[in-house]
Amino acid sequence: MIKRIGARTIGFEEMPTIIGYASVAGKKESEGPLGDCFDKLIFDSYDGLDTYEQAESQFQTEAVSLALEKSGVTADEVDYIFAGDLLNQCVGSSFGLLDFNIPYLGQYGACSTMAQGLIMASVFVESGAANIAMCVTSSHFCSAERQYRFPLEYGGVRTPTAQWTVTGAGSCVLRNDKKGPCVAKATVGRIVDLGVKDANNMGAAMAPAAAQTLKDYFVDTHTSPDDYDLILTGDLGEVGSLSLYDLLSIDGYDIKEKHNDCGLMIFDRKKQDVHAGGSGCGCAGSVFCSKILNEVKSGTLNNILFMATGALMSPTTSWQGSSIPSIAHLLNIRFR
Amino acid sequence: MIKRIGARTIGFEEMPTIIGYASVAGKKESEGPLGDCFDKLIFDSYDGLDTYEQAESQFQTEAVSLALEKSGVTADEVDYIFAGDLLNQCVGSSFGLLDFNIPYLGQYGACSTMAQGLIMASVFVESGAANIAMCVTSSHFCSAERQYRFPLEYGGVRTPTAQWTVTGAGSCVLRNDKKGPCVAKATVGRIVDLGVKDANNMGAAMAPAAAQTLKDYFVDTHTSPDDYDLILTGDLGEVGSLSLYDLLSIDGYDIKEKHNDCGLMIFDRKKQDVHAGGSGCGCAGSVFCSKILNEVKSGTLNNILFMATGALMSPTTSWQGSSIPSIAHLLNIRFR
Repeated sequence: MIKRIGARTIGFEEMPTIIGYASVAGKKESEGPLGDCFDKLIFDSYDGLDTYEQAESQFQTEAVSLALEKSGVTADEVDYIFAGDLLNQCVGSSFGLLDFNIPYLGQYGACSTMAQGLIMASVFVESGAANIAMCVTSSHFCSAERQYRFPLEYGGVRTPTAQWTVTGAGSCVLRNDKKGPCVAKATVGRIVDLGVKDANNMGAAMAPAAAQTLKDYFVDTHTSPDDYDLILTGDLGEVGSLSLYDLLSIDGYDIKEKHNDCGLMIFDRKKQDVHAGGSGCGCAGSVFCSKILNEVKSGTLNNILFMATGALMSPTTSWQGSSIPSIAHLLNIRFR
Repeated sequence: MIKRIGARTIGFEEMPTIIGYASVAGKKESEGPLGDCFDKLIFDSYDGLDTYEQAESQFQTEAVSLALEKSGVTADEVDYIFAGDLLNQCVGSSFGLLDFNIPYLGQYGACSTMAQGLIMASVFVESGAANIAMCVTSSHFCSAERQYRFPLEYGGVRTPTAQWTVTGAGSCVLRNDKKGPCVAKATVGRIVDLGVKDANNMGAAMAPAAAQTLKDYFVDTHTSPDDYDLILTGDLGEVGSLSLYDLLSIDGYDIKEKHNDCGLMIFDRKKQDVHAGGSGCGCAGSVFCSKILNEVKSGTLNNILFMATGALMSPTTSWQGSSIPSIAHLLNIRFR
């Protein structure tokens, strides 16, 4: 049963279990601090195919195949898959999932998609709509750069606040089960827009959404940062993380000791020239579905908050001078 | 409670009720056969704003405001809104819904988004995750043409199989209630790709997905076309509807007598130069949330199937020579 907690949080009585998960990552990610954590490393930006977009689709195919394999579940047994990515019209998902023949519900939450898909899969499993549900998301540095910024051949200089789109994917399989990492609560975000217009500073644009959702969750559940082993954000990077601390301090919350960010974990910012950190759906996707779930599964982390943030703009709206609305979705993940 | 029926259909015991709905439509749509059915007509392509994209966002704002008003519900009371559109990164939704401050879950189902959002809202209401949930979708001829085809100024000639993107939006408010149009069952589609590559013949690309989902539903529920007052597809248009008849006839289903298509209903094809019919998220959205729900609410239609189809391609994948994967999501809507 799903219970509403406070104004905007839901609680899952059965707590759907993440029975399997997998991550794939690219060459640069393999050279970072988490290089040993990913299930599969793909060194070729084209992944043996003709275009970056096809490669990104194949990342989703690989992540889903591995997550199924690690769960001991076949695609036929999966009732729904929730998927999305940064490519226009989410083609990373639609082409990448074609051959699995699983009922498909496309999600668009920008870089918050990993959290959004997990919430969806949890609601469908807990409600009985699904026995088994999956989620997957991806991003690819090369396909994102040419769609959102410049063709790689142009060699554009990046600003210090810019983040580096992660080449990677993450996927989870959920079912009601007695043991393993499970989803206890979730808070869906509201769209926030404090007027940031700099498409090269996504961290600043997304921090207000992260602050709002986290506050919503703490208020609804009567908990505080001290109650959790880790508060993990998706890809705020250096600038966004500092903004989040500032915004939360206004309301008296201090998360510094408990906080980490997938965008800060996946690269070594001193050595890897990624400026403010990693970003993209595949950032939260690949980090959550590797190191983080490994540590929850082993019992090292018992009770965490995973909150992925998304910038809901498009290049068209940026060119038209619009600001960047953002969102953040949060899950409370526990080990049992 | 949600019950699984057969392999891919779910049944809602409480049957979430559509307590309010609204549609907005543009000038060309106002001149068509359904011109009198829409809640609001917008004759200015810019809707008083600076860009077509801003106008499309405002269509969603208007549709949601009207649906709330007609339901007697305030935005504060809505627990979730499920929304999406055809614009890159679904900016019609993120900008259009910003001011409502409703927890937001972005959906991408291309032209199937109205059906997808309705399924999501139904699952969330039935499961107790939401007391009240909404969905909304939109499309705009001018923003779609320049994103998917040519700038309007170019004056490109359209092929006979091309469809005309509807300028409009539709929105529904769902809650558990005793009376009104309600959602009884739903079947989420699987991605289908029979190799159609012609982006000017979306009807042909989407018909196989429609045939598959409809067959899934009939098999799961042990029903046939005769059991329904109407089988309504989203925007297959003339070419896609004929393809659907052919594909279903292989399995012995004949839906001709019961079938209609939002893309064939919204325009007068003899007078309005729309070639194969209307299309776009706003096609199924505005037709379903006007004439169709009016007739269900009045008891004229008691038991219908509403199935919206979507083509999951992007201009990039078409330019790269890829085929067009498609999907169709179905709902069984009843009057009580």
